[in-house]
Amino acid sequence: MSKSWLPTLFTDTPEEGYALAIKLSRTGVKLTQPDTEVLTRLRPIYADDPDSLVAVSQVIAINFQTVAAANGYWKAA
Amino acid sequence: MSKSWLPTLFTDTPEEGYALAIKLSRTGVKLTQPDTEVLTRLRPIYADDPDSLVAVSQVIAINFQTVAAANGYWKAA
Amino acid sequence: MSKSWLPTLFTDTPEEGYALAIKLSRTGVKLTQPDTEVLTRLRPIYADDPDSLVAVSQVIAINFQTVAAANGYWKAA
Amino acid sequence: MSKSWLPTLFTDTPEEGYALAIKLSRTGVKLTQPDTEVLTRLRPIYADDPDSLVAVSQVIAINFQTVAAANGYWKAA
Amino acid sequence: MSKSWLPTLFTDTPEEGYALAIKLSRTGVKLTQPDTEVLTRLRPIYADDPDSLVAVSQVIAINFQTVAAANGYWKAA
Amino acid sequence: MSKSWLPTLFTDTPEEGYALAIKLSRTGVKLTQPDTEVLTRLRPIYADDPDSLVAVSQVIAINFQTVAAANGYWKAA
Repeated sequence: MSKSWLPTLFTDTPEEGYALAIKLSRTGVKLTQPDTEVLTRLRPIYADDPDSLVAVSQVIAINFQTVAAANGYWKAA
Repeated sequence: MSKSWLPTLFTDTPEEGYALAIKLSRTGVKLTQPDTEVLTRLRPIYADDPDSLVAVSQVIAINFQTVAAANGYWKAA
Repeated sequence: MSKSWLPTLFTDTPEEGYALAIKLSRTGVKLTQPDTEVLTRLRPIYADDPDSLVAVSQVIAINFQTVAAANGYWKAA
Repeated sequence: MSKSWLPTLFTDTPEEGYALAIKLSRTGVKLTQPDTEVLTRLRPIYADDPDSLVAVSQVIAINFQTVAAANGYWKAA
Repeated sequence: MSKSWLPTLFTDTPEEGYALAIKLSRTGVKLTQPDTEVLTRLRPIYADDPDSLVAVSQVIAINFQTVAAANGYWKAA
Repeated sequence: MSKSWLPTLFTDTPEEGYALAIKLSRTGVKLTQPDTEVLTRLRPIYADDPDSLVAVSQVIAINFQTVAAANGYWKAA
C-alpha cells in the first residue's frame, strides 16, 4: 500500500501549515500536467514572470486558508 | 436512473477529498464546453501554459476549501 | 407575479446544488450583458478558449461554496 | 441627511440578495472610477468581452457569498 | 505615537464597512508601491481600463467579506 | 534551532495583522522563486504595473481574511 501524499491537514505549527499549503498548490499543478519533463521546462518560465509568481502566491493563500481553518488557526482565541 | 456524478461531498480521507476537488473543477469546464472533441484539442494548450496551470490549481484550491469544510477538515481539532 | 429565478439556495442533492451554482454563474453574466444576441455571439469565443473555460469554472467553484454552505454541505458531519 | 446606498445586508429573498451582490460589485467599480462619462464609455467594451464578463460574474459571486452568509442563507438547515 | 491606519475592523454601518474595505484594498497597493509619484502616474491607466476596474472591485469584495464577518454582518439573523 | 518565520497567526492589533498578511503574501512569492537576485530584478517590473499591483493586493486580502479570522476579528461582536 503506497503512502498517501495527504494523510492529514493537521500540522503542529503555522509554519508547517504554510508548507502544506504550498504542497497542496503544487499538487494541483502536477495532477493537471503529470509530465514532469514539461513541468521542469515550464518552471523557469513562470518563476521569472512577476504575474505568474503573484498568481502562485494567491493559490498558496487560498490553500493556507483551508489548512489554517483545519487547525483551528493553531488554537487560542 | 443514471448514477449521480456527485452523490456526496464526504470522503474518507483528505487525499480522496482532493481528488473530489479536482473532479469538481473538471466538471465546471466540461459543463461549459460539453464538446469532448474541443476539450481534447484544448487540453494540450493549457497543460503547456504555466499561467493556465496555475489558474487550474486555483480552481482546485477553491473546491478543496468546500470539500474540506464539508468533511469537518477530517475531524479532530 | 413572475416566478423568481432564485427562490431558494436549498437543493436535495449536491449534484443539484452544483447545477444551481452554474445557474448563479450564468446569471451574473446575463445581468451584465442582457443582450442575448451578443451573448450568443460571445459564447463560442470563450467556450473555445482554455483560459476562459478555467475562469468560468472558477466562478462556478465560488458559487458552489455558497450553495454547499447553505445546504450544510448536505448534512452529516 | 442623504440616504445610505447600503443601509443593510439583509434581504427578504435570495433573488433580492443576488441583486444586492450586483449593486455591491458595481459600487466597487464606481468608487474607483467616479467619472460617469468614462464608465459609460468603458461599459460597451467590457460588456462585449467574454473574459471581462466572466470576471464581473466572479466579483458578483464573491459579494453574493457575503450577502448569503449575512442572511443565514435565507434560513432553514 | 502615530495613530494606527487600522485601529479596528468594526464599523457602525455596512456603508462604513464598505468604505473600510476600500481603504484595505488601497493600502495593499500602497504598501507594495510606496512611491506616491508612481501611484499617481499609474492611477489614470488602470482607472481607464475595464479589466483593472473589475480587478479592483474584486479586491474590495474580498476585503468586504472580512469586514462584514467581523461585524457579524451588522447583526440580526 | 532557527527561529520560525511564522510562529503564530495571532497579533495584538488589526494593523499588525495586516502586516502579517503582507508577510504571508511575500513569502509565497519567495518560496516559489528563492533566487533573491531574480526577485530584486522583477520587483520594479510589477511594482510599476497597475494590474500586478492589484493582483498583489488581492493576495494580501486573502491572507488578511485568514489572519483576521484567526484573531476572532480582534474580538468584540
